[in-house]
Amino acid sequence: MRSDAPAPPCTLVIFGASGDLTHRKLLPALYYLYEQKLLPEQFAVIGVARQELSADAFRREAAKHLRAFVKNPKPALVARLVKRLRYVVGDFGAPDVFLKLKRELVEVERAHATKGNVLFYMATAPDYFAPIVESLAQQGLLREDRGFRRVVVEKPFGRDLKSACELNARLLAVADEKQIFRIDHYLGKETVQNLLVFRFGNAIFEPIWNRRYIDHVQLTVAEDIGVEGRGGYYDTAGAMRDMVPNHIFQLISLIGMEPPSAFDADSVREEQGKVIRAFAPLSPEDLKRHVVRGQYKGYRSEPKVARDSRTETFTAMKLYIENWRWADVPFIFRTGKKLPCRTSEIVIQFRRAPLRLFRQAGVEAITPNQIVIRIQPNEGIALNFEAKVPGPSMKVGTVNMDFRYQDYFGLRPSTGYERLLHDAMLGDAMLFRRADALEAGWAFVEPVQKAWARSRARPAAYKPGTWGPP
Amino acid sequence: MRSDAPAPPCTLVIFGASGDLTHRKLLPALYYLYEQKLLPEQFAVIGVARQELSADAFRREAAKHLRAFVKNPKPALVARLVKRLRYVVGDFGAPDVFLKLKRELVEVERAHATKGNVLFYMATAPDYFAPIVESLAQQGLLREDRGFRRVVVEKPFGRDLKSACELNARLLAVADEKQIFRIDHYLGKETVQNLLVFRFGNAIFEPIWNRRYIDHVQLTVAEDIGVEGRGGYYDTAGAMRDMVPNHIFQLISLIGMEPPSAFDADSVREEQGKVIRAFAPLSPEDLKRHVVRGQYKGYRSEPKVARDSRTETFTAMKLYIENWRWADVPFIFRTGKKLPCRTSEIVIQFRRAPLRLFRQAGVEAITPNQIVIRIQPNEGIALNFEAKVPGPSMKVGTVNMDFRYQDYFGLRPSTGYERLLHDAMLGDAMLFRRADALEAGWAFVEPVQKAWARSRARPAAYKPGTWGPP
Repeated sequence: MRSDAPAPPCTLVIFGASGDLTHRKLLPALYYLYEQKLLPEQFAVIGVARQELSADAFRREAAKHLRAFVKNPKPALVARLVKRLRYVVGDFGAPDVFLKLKRELVEVERAHATKGNVLFYMATAPDYFAPIVESLAQQGLLREDRGFRRVVVEKPFGRDLKSACELNARLLAVADEKQIFRIDHYLGKETVQNLLVFRFGNAIFEPIWNRRYIDHVQLTVAEDIGVEGRGGYYDTAGAMRDMVPNHIFQLISLIGMEPPSAFDADSVREEQGKVIRAFAPLSPEDLKRHVVRGQYKGYRSEPKVARDSRTETFTAMKLYIENWRWADVPFIFRTGKKLPCRTSEIVIQFRRAPLRLFRQAGVEAITPNQIVIRIQPNEGIALNFEAKVPGPSMKVGTVNMDFRYQDYFGLRPSTGYERLLHDAMLGDAMLFRRADALEAGWAFVEPVQKAWARSRARPAAYKPGTWGPP
Repeated sequence: MRSDAPAPPCTLVIFGASGDLTHRKLLPALYYLYEQKLLPEQFAVIGVARQELSADAFRREAAKHLRAFVKNPKPALVARLVKRLRYVVGDFGAPDVFLKLKRELVEVERAHATKGNVLFYMATAPDYFAPIVESLAQQGLLREDRGFRRVVVEKPFGRDLKSACELNARLLAVADEKQIFRIDHYLGKETVQNLLVFRFGNAIFEPIWNRRYIDHVQLTVAEDIGVEGRGGYYDTAGAMRDMVPNHIFQLISLIGMEPPSAFDADSVREEQGKVIRAFAPLSPEDLKRHVVRGQYKGYRSEPKVARDSRTETFTAMKLYIENWRWADVPFIFRTGKKLPCRTSEIVIQFRRAPLRLFRQAGVEAITPNQIVIRIQPNEGIALNFEAKVPGPSMKVGTVNMDFRYQDYFGLRPSTGYERLLHDAMLGDAMLFRRADALEAGWAFVEPVQKAWARSRARPAAYKPGTWGPP
């Protein structure tokens, strides 16, 4: 199946259809896919939510959100898209809603010729993921005799090793691994593919992409905002759960992985999993010296946050990958809220060139080379290197070569969800997390989580707008 | 001696003081050095030429040329500089002029406290180089008992192996190698130092700078103009003599050299010489297949060019460096006149990344990485690499990271001669060619020159404004 072809006929069922994710991301993503002719003509959406709404009211709501969140929406296209929307009202906890859904699916299939293919999207609170999937299975809705039945699970996927394993076990009890698409929208398909092409489509980087030439790798995933009304959820999660085992480890695995034997879901995810499984376990000593936990000042006064909350809004860590490529190369990441800016970037810092030649010419310092991979904003890649400062004496300064995707390819409006939705419809799981890698990630952070849970100490305070605790 | 310090007290003697080189380059270069406070206060210039002129008339002429060829000349500075000028009239072939020069030097030393340091600059036709230096020696003017006595020899340095060896032998019979500065103004000090810093100040390039990763190296030194009134000289020289053993081989040696053990003249030039001595000799077969000789259409109608001239205005060659770093990597150069643009650049083309991964994703071609080193115009460095073209399918396109010196450091007006003059005054010979490297270069091209001399064939014709013969 070519990935620039329209998706096959299918129905998208969105659980949590009245939520923010649906309004701001999923519906606009469908619009952009539709506009790019990547949706099939045999396509429909069934929204499921508790809110009492007629199908017409749901369509009107959807049209409103499309007009609000799509860039330059075309009225005709909006109208044609919302015609494909249906709505099922009900409580995800009650079996009732799944019966209604089952009937609706039959009708939709008849009306839109969707050929029995269904994608179930869990845009709900995480507690509902397993119960919904189990209910779907109970109604026989996950049986693939007549078409594909796939489940897209939003993050967070578990809150620790135990809950992630439990969630996986529950899902895998009623569905096959290949039916489950664990999404990480932080890492759009473009970014992942850009990284893969950068690393494996360029012969000059691979030879120096290892411990012999790389001094350390630094990852930053920073938000400048605070919890912004999501205090209730965030206070039970924190920076570690929110970002690390899923997003950060996904990034580290893309930087650290061996060349996959093919560009397919299993080959790529196999190599990614190997990286995460090779993380050197954190000793009690490491926990003290290599892990930072912070909380921004004022966090405890945020709405719905516990007044004595010990939830971290910042975490940083130094870890090692114990394999032939990476032994002894620190991977250092930091992530958090209320940091100075919103940015995701990876800095590959190389070892310094030998100084002797330059010292003898009066140069006392040389800055090591860096490759800076910006994921957002201004997605691109820069190379920092040393050049001679013009003039009679030998002075060396750091200069920069820069490449920005948008300079070459323009900027297409995107929610980050288009490709993921499209891939899930196509059945391409490369960009989705596999159970083994996720569980390996949770296993790695478990000692941190346990130590933090045991500790009575409050996370180190940091001033909003700074790079975390000192 | 720090290279951003003013030069030591000295007198510059210019043979050929009424020529174009003096007017357009040497005098403006002195001005810029003066402006940057890189000339000592104890400094004077003695112009020597055949033209009957009073010292005052020479100064007036010089002031006129400074105003014409210096960018934004400051009248006060021009006035102060020309006050240091003196003039000796005479024929370089007659001993008389050297006696006058000797007397003048005594006076200048008294008037300007130049401490017996003298730099003799051969801005004359090449036939005079050896006779002048011999006459200087005869008058005892090259004896260094009281200060330095250095000779700057312009190109062309010989016209073949035999004449270059003869010239060297004549110069070295009366002067020491370290007194002789063979200039290559095509390669300003900045460029050489930029190349050295780029290669040895950045840890990421050296590991891939060899036959394992580099597919080939391409050098282009192109002029868009024709012989422009220099037909008389050019027709006896040609593209090979004019550019190859000196300039092109200097560039190849900078790209190909091993890291020198120090940034000093002898360490750097030793490594450069090793590269040139490692050129694989051209077999008769190579002469046919790897050497191109061209002449632009209309060349024979240029003023002072023989109507049946077989002088080449274009040459291209493929050569190999037979050592552990470069065996089997073709170095391909082309140089000539009436080409599409004026440019000097070096392209390092790397091997292609393995295609398998991408072929399986539907990508049928990957462009190899290139490092493009631009010497002029727009001095800078660019890296061409592959990136994913945004969109649902895996398409790969070549993009570019670019660095331009002037974006970082601004553009300072320069003749290209300032640093070389300043270095010669300081006694730093790094940027000047050593006899052994030059002779090795001539030895390498000798079979080509012999074959061309034997051949009755006219060089392949090419249309002005094209990249040479087909």
